[in-house]
Amino acid sequence: MSLGGIEAGGTHWNCAIGGRGVELTRVETFPTTTPAETIGRAVEFFAAEPDLEALGVGLFGPVDLRPDSSRWGTILTTPKPGWEDVDVAGALAAALEVPIALDTDVNAAAVGEWRHGAARGAGTFVYVTVGTGIGGGVFANGRPVHGLLHPEVGHMMVPHDRSRDPFEGCCPFHGDCLEGLASGTAMRERWGKPAEELTDPEAWDLEAEYLALGLANLVMVLSAERIVLGGGVGRAPGLIERVNERLSETLAAYVPAPEVVNPGLGPRSGLIGAIELARSC
Amino acid sequence: MSLGGIEAGGTHWNCAIGGRGVELTRVETFPTTTPAETIGRAVEFFAAEPDLEALGVGLFGPVDLRPDSSRWGTILTTPKPGWEDVDVAGALAAALEVPIALDTDVNAAAVGEWRHGAARGAGTFVYVTVGTGIGGGVFANGRPVHGLLHPEVGHMMVPHDRSRDPFEGCCPFHGDCLEGLASGTAMRERWGKPAEELTDPEAWDLEAEYLALGLANLVMVLSAERIVLGGGVGRAPGLIERVNERLSETLAAYVPAPEVVNPGLGPRSGLIGAIELARSC
Repeated sequence: MSLGGIEAGGTHWNCAIGGRGVELTRVETFPTTTPAETIGRAVEFFAAEPDLEALGVGLFGPVDLRPDSSRWGTILTTPKPGWEDVDVAGALAAALEVPIALDTDVNAAAVGEWRHGAARGAGTFVYVTVGTGIGGGVFANGRPVHGLLHPEVGHMMVPHDRSRDPFEGCCPFHGDCLEGLASGTAMRERWGKPAEELTDPEAWDLEAEYLALGLANLVMVLSAERIVLGGGVGRAPGLIERVNERLSETLAAYVPAPEVVNPGLGPRSGLIGAIELARSC
Repeated sequence: MSLGGIEAGGTHWNCAIGGRGVELTRVETFPTTTPAETIGRAVEFFAAEPDLEALGVGLFGPVDLRPDSSRWGTILTTPKPGWEDVDVAGALAAALEVPIALDTDVNAAAVGEWRHGAARGAGTFVYVTVGTGIGGGVFANGRPVHGLLHPEVGHMMVPHDRSRDPFEGCCPFHGDCLEGLASGTAMRERWGKPAEELTDPEAWDLEAEYLALGLANLVMVLSAERIVLGGGVGRAPGLIERVNERLSETLAAYVPAPEVVNPGLGPRSGLIGAIELARSC
């Protein structure tokens, strides 16, 4: 049995072939460029697999996930040039002729962590990724949450003390939403260098502060049993300890604080989750 | 068949007898005073019912709802004098000897609206009540959300522009959380009179602003298909129009805005929901 998975993010696409468990037999990563080129490279990768049975796709959003929609699998409003209104699932299905299971990239990562990683046994939890942007996959009552569209936890509005942090925020839609204040992009714009080069404790204290405020809201809305914090910035050494500390202080013992943990699958939550989506076809 | 329901709120308890549908045959309301007196009045009300089969209780929180917990049905940390650590479900069960189904008062209201009111057909939605405090019942994937404890949406942290609103917030736990800024208590403390006597458009614009920020976060976390806005303040004439308008502006068309509607069951969502909980026993 050969299952394919794509973690189709806004910055990179990761393609892999998997079977049982978490082992991946082939993996390829390439940047998200134009839709034609990016989808083309994915098609090429999977077309080389002789007995592909199904494909799971974790796609960056916003994306139409309503099973009965004529636009199922189509990217909606996005600031990413060229991707708005692109029917990603349709293009893959037409080229590869296999069943396709689809969710957001972050819901796929949540599925991966739930099946094989740090969220095993949790019925209600959130996978939050902090990288170029901020996204989140949400599980409630043992299943990914969709609703009217799908969660976009990076765009929550959180307190912003301009006397401490005069940075206006970098979200083209909401300015100083969580993503606008605490994404890798925000860190780079605020401090003038990328997160991986930032050593100033002030920068990381502020980052932990914003993430704790966002995670506190996830606790208040969902009563999340666990929060998995991933992504290039989210997995930065030392950050999770600060976030746990500030989250606990923010909740002020009104409700119990869930543990914030790094992904059990490291940077592969989304890819392994996409294979799990394929398994459900 | 006779089913009992209690909407056991922090300010008032409403007791009722119901059967099929939404008709209630007896209703009694009394203030939430001491635990002994309040629970005693409820026991008296239901003891008079000769063929009570089950009791549904929508209880103010935080409350332990874990089915396997020895403290199931016990009030946890609460600023309400005398109620901390009170085993409400245990006291009712011992006195009345009927099966008891329990959820938060706001989850019970969500159940009522989902079965018979403004949230019929929604799998993922939120019932938000704005009165003395702010609470919310959350449905995801067709069932109430519990998690580590239960949702406490009133305690989300939202932006607070102190140059527009210097009021510090009145939440004893979090200061200027949503409840601290937008509850009936906050309105009374900020403006010097209760919400029902406030006619100043500035007061209601600010109220709509905070509620829209809170509801935007519910949309971002849950992708809620609908939001039911109830409670004494939430049902104030003209408020819902302002909230819908500001919510739409806050989301900035990044994701679709769900409709915010008043409860289909008026002030009886919680009581009818409690009867529905009893039906599930």
